[in-house]
Amino acid sequence: MIQRKLEVTYLPFDRTTRVPPGTTLFSAAHWIGLPIDSTCGGRGTCGKCKVRVIRGGADAETADHRQLRPAEIADGWRLSCQARIYQDMTCEVPQLLRVPKAATMGLGRLVILDPNVRKVYLELREPTMEDQRSDVARLKDALTEEGHGMVAGVSVLRTMPQVFREAGFRVTAVLAGEHLVAIESGDTTGECYGVAFDVGTTTLVGTLMNLRTGMAASVLSTLNGQAPFGADVISRISHGMNGPEAIQELQEAVIGTMNTILAELYRDSGVSPQQTYEAVVVGNVTMLHLLFGIDPTPLSMAPFTPAFMDELSIEAREVGLQIHPHGYIQTLPALGAYVGADIVGGVLATGVAREDKLRVFVDVGTNGEIVLGNAQRALATAAPAGPAFEGSQIKCGMRATVGAIEGVQLGDRVELQVIGGDVPAEGICGSGLVDAVAQLLLAGLLDYSGRFKKPEDVPDHPLHDRLIDVDGMRAFVLADGVYLTQRDIRELQFAKGSIATGIKVLMDILGVTAKDLDEVLLGGSFGSYLNPESAKIIGLVPPVDVDRIIAVGNSAGEGAKIALLSYRERQVAFELPSRIEYVELSGRSDFNDSFISVLAFPQLEHVP
Amino acid sequence: MIQRKLEVTYLPFDRTTRVPPGTTLFSAAHWIGLPIDSTCGGRGTCGKCKVRVIRGGADAETADHRQLRPAEIADGWRLSCQARIYQDMTCEVPQLLRVPKAATMGLGRLVILDPNVRKVYLELREPTMEDQRSDVARLKDALTEEGHGMVAGVSVLRTMPQVFREAGFRVTAVLAGEHLVAIESGDTTGECYGVAFDVGTTTLVGTLMNLRTGMAASVLSTLNGQAPFGADVISRISHGMNGPEAIQELQEAVIGTMNTILAELYRDSGVSPQQTYEAVVVGNVTMLHLLFGIDPTPLSMAPFTPAFMDELSIEAREVGLQIHPHGYIQTLPALGAYVGADIVGGVLATGVAREDKLRVFVDVGTNGEIVLGNAQRALATAAPAGPAFEGSQIKCGMRATVGAIEGVQLGDRVELQVIGGDVPAEGICGSGLVDAVAQLLLAGLLDYSGRFKKPEDVPDHPLHDRLIDVDGMRAFVLADGVYLTQRDIRELQFAKGSIATGIKVLMDILGVTAKDLDEVLLGGSFGSYLNPESAKIIGLVPPVDVDRIIAVGNSAGEGAKIALLSYRERQVAFELPSRIEYVELSGRSDFNDSFISVLAFPQLEHVP
Repeated sequence: MIQRKLEVTYLPFDRTTRVPPGTTLFSAAHWIGLPIDSTCGGRGTCGKCKVRVIRGGADAETADHRQLRPAEIADGWRLSCQARIYQDMTCEVPQLLRVPKAATMGLGRLVILDPNVRKVYLELREPTMEDQRSDVARLKDALTEEGHGMVAGVSVLRTMPQVFREAGFRVTAVLAGEHLVAIESGDTTGECYGVAFDVGTTTLVGTLMNLRTGMAASVLSTLNGQAPFGADVISRISHGMNGPEAIQELQEAVIGTMNTILAELYRDSGVSPQQTYEAVVVGNVTMLHLLFGIDPTPLSMAPFTPAFMDELSIEAREVGLQIHPHGYIQTLPALGAYVGADIVGGVLATGVAREDKLRVFVDVGTNGEIVLGNAQRALATAAPAGPAFEGSQIKCGMRATVGAIEGVQLGDRVELQVIGGDVPAEGICGSGLVDAVAQLLLAGLLDYSGRFKKPEDVPDHPLHDRLIDVDGMRAFVLADGVYLTQRDIRELQFAKGSIATGIKVLMDILGVTAKDLDEVLLGGSFGSYLNPESAKIIGLVPPVDVDRIIAVGNSAGEGAKIALLSYRERQVAFELPSRIEYVELSGRSDFNDSFISVLAFPQLEHVP
Repeated sequence: MIQRKLEVTYLPFDRTTRVPPGTTLFSAAHWIGLPIDSTCGGRGTCGKCKVRVIRGGADAETADHRQLRPAEIADGWRLSCQARIYQDMTCEVPQLLRVPKAATMGLGRLVILDPNVRKVYLELREPTMEDQRSDVARLKDALTEEGHGMVAGVSVLRTMPQVFREAGFRVTAVLAGEHLVAIESGDTTGECYGVAFDVGTTTLVGTLMNLRTGMAASVLSTLNGQAPFGADVISRISHGMNGPEAIQELQEAVIGTMNTILAELYRDSGVSPQQTYEAVVVGNVTMLHLLFGIDPTPLSMAPFTPAFMDELSIEAREVGLQIHPHGYIQTLPALGAYVGADIVGGVLATGVAREDKLRVFVDVGTNGEIVLGNAQRALATAAPAGPAFEGSQIKCGMRATVGAIEGVQLGDRVELQVIGGDVPAEGICGSGLVDAVAQLLLAGLLDYSGRFKKPEDVPDHPLHDRLIDVDGMRAFVLADGVYLTQRDIRELQFAKGSIATGIKVLMDILGVTAKDLDEVLLGGSFGSYLNPESAKIIGLVPPVDVDRIIAVGNSAGEGAKIALLSYRERQVAFELPSRIEYVELSGRSDFNDSFISVLAFPQLEHVP
């Protein structure tokens, strides 16, 4: 559901944005690249983010009364992190974040280094008979003075009396948000790490990040340990249907993989688990359900309802993740049952739905996840593509591993690019398939309806003898024992047709055409290998200039890293579900109509 | 530190109270017995507690904007649970809690049955393709409609998909505050229990409460399993100094005792752990430290700093307490290192610091905990009494068990009341000691300075031959082999002198005398057995009419039960540390001066 948007203007920059009601002035400013000063993470405890409201009111909240003088409040000053927008407003910002440390991440996004995990070194006053505050009150008061709120659980409390006294009350408080993660002896502010995980159905990527510098300390990817239970999401869910033990098995498999990655990251970097205070995790909805041991069964059948879609923050020890024993796991929210936190990460990394440029972000896989829009309005959907792009259901299809054809060039002869270089082709993977079909179209060996020409129709074509008959079906020979059949072409048509339709439905809702699109972003590892030209030729993506089709790589993982390094960006991610409208395709008549019409390939003269 | 108080008047009742700045209108009203309507527990989600502010402003908070129409806000309507008092105010209350279910508890306190644990039966709409909300969003929306906020942890999430579907989406949500404790199939609102624990150094009392009826389902008390590690707080702390394993040993001992009590309560009542969703626990500061496995060492030496004093809420499974696996433990806050949550419970149960009557609440034990005041101002302190009242350090002293003299009457002969009835006296316990000394004073066998008369000074006294000499020290024979020595009298003088001084210091700070006191309340089990007349004669309590000296029994446990049955009362308990000033006696020159002056017994003609 789209909400009525409200207009906010920031002075002296004279920058205006439109936001859903209830957004804070702080968050809306960050959304358009105006990082208002703050140290507390927008929790109303540091008082640094105050702005003066000039037009449109904002009532003073409790935190305002604590942080501001009555005269300031009367004069319109408010903490921007507390002031929610319920009418059009103008405010004056006295102080942006000064010389922020920043890192370029994702798609050229400048991310302010302002992690959710913060270390604060404190020289506490020692207790006396005149000052008998409890340890936790003493710490809390000192943190409040520095502008930080704090909540301490019993597990950290347990360590407090001893650490305080051994350290002579010179300690470092480690905060994740306002949760006290640890109290460390002396000044340990130099060492502060977190880990970003992209939990894919096939592959897990872990990146250990230095939260002080914003640099990766170590990166590792490995296969998801759930692989023995099936290659795709549906087979994993099916295994989970065997009961709670099966779900636990799947959970242990993925946590085990994460811990294996962590062990290697620690070994490689010399960082310890005790210095790693937070994990930001993205993944599709099923993967996150299994990560937490939650039954994903209802995801596999209509009406596809997840147990949860919002962001979750839990203590790492709840699932046995090997970071600091009181550290936290933070997930990003999902937009729909099949548009998960990985896509939200991608949106965060690319800035789609946040800039004026109209862009479509497509993550091609078993499902094509699509986000279309700009700062004014954005839509998301998932199109069921089937397994063709993963090389499945394709006669000679295979995953993108050594021996797979990943690129095809047809001229007088067939030129192949095979993964592993100088090895014989064993099969064809998704990107090779797209390339091959595009080249077959260009070469005139395939017609727009997707039918192979007969060899006798193209007797002069140098490759006409590669058109063969396999089990009564036409096929094209790519290499010794590797060929594409007519059915393979049909599979691809269905897959690309589904995604193309998804894009078209969203474009129709938004009332835009391919001409209006500034960019087409291809996410995921498949997107990185896909030849943009070929994707365009087969009609997988809308017909825009090829240089506007951009592979954005592992944008999900980039999003997780960004959320790890910046609480402001994390907040943006949390808000995405309320900013991006989710469109369910199944059951939509325009989807079915459109689907039929885009099964065919675009006529080449119409592809710019 | 005392804060400037602000005045609030509630119409149409025309009731006025004075509160510390920042108190909510909701809480201040409850404090003076005006229970404003509400179902959400003052969390700003039900909207029922709205009042109209007539004098003195209150800014509209986020929750106001969610629950009230703009016209209402403009007209001064505010959610009283969100409106904090920062200036003198008058407001109009449209709706008190209608015919509240209530129970009389503690010292004649009418407690509204409004437990923190609530069960809400919901018939959820089943998901459809048009309504793909996640399970947790579906639940949250339904609860919001009923006026309840909700936060769900991962452990409850795990149970959600299956319970929803097995129950055909007819479920009961169990909330503790806004934490979702459980989702139960069908309507289980009929069965809802909690447990109140008073964790004493010597004895633990557990009461299983039916949260629907407010009645106790079963009660049990048993010795604290920490007994083998020493009889008093200091010896427990000493054992804990042996290291983390020793602290864990102490923790396991007390948790073990609580679980033993629970097992018996369940057996006795037929209630199951799965139906018991919350435990409210009171105890002295050391006991609560050990309960959570927190090192109490700093409590045993100046400057006596606890690790924590505020209320704590943790999941029961964190310490292995056998209630619902996702149930919560809630403790009450402490006022000082030696004025713990048990005393806060007592204050809650007696209403001290809350009514206009000026009262002093005294819990006599190794420490005498003292709270003096009324709704205008209240003070608390702990006076180190030593072990005399526990029968320790007394030649023939013993605990209050079978064979102990607990009452003494001196006339022509000695009349004794012995615990166990028809058994020979084996020694004397605290209440017997107080009685004996008071009777010796009345009989003229002891002078006001505390010195025994010589037999030859009172030759005509019928009991003069009971004044004997033991190892060169004067003594009085109470029974065969049971006597009080001159040193015993001195021990008692020090003990009662310390407590009397504590009371006097507080009375001096408040500027009141015994004449101003409306009541003297004696808390704890010792207080129940103490003869008020004797307590007055020896000068342990201020000289007020005997019928104004009231034994209030296990007020700590009553306080825990009240906090279990009423979230409003719980909130009052949480606010007590900011309402009651803590006075540290050690190091105060007036304490030392006063102490010397009250060592003597009051002259009888001065005792009214």
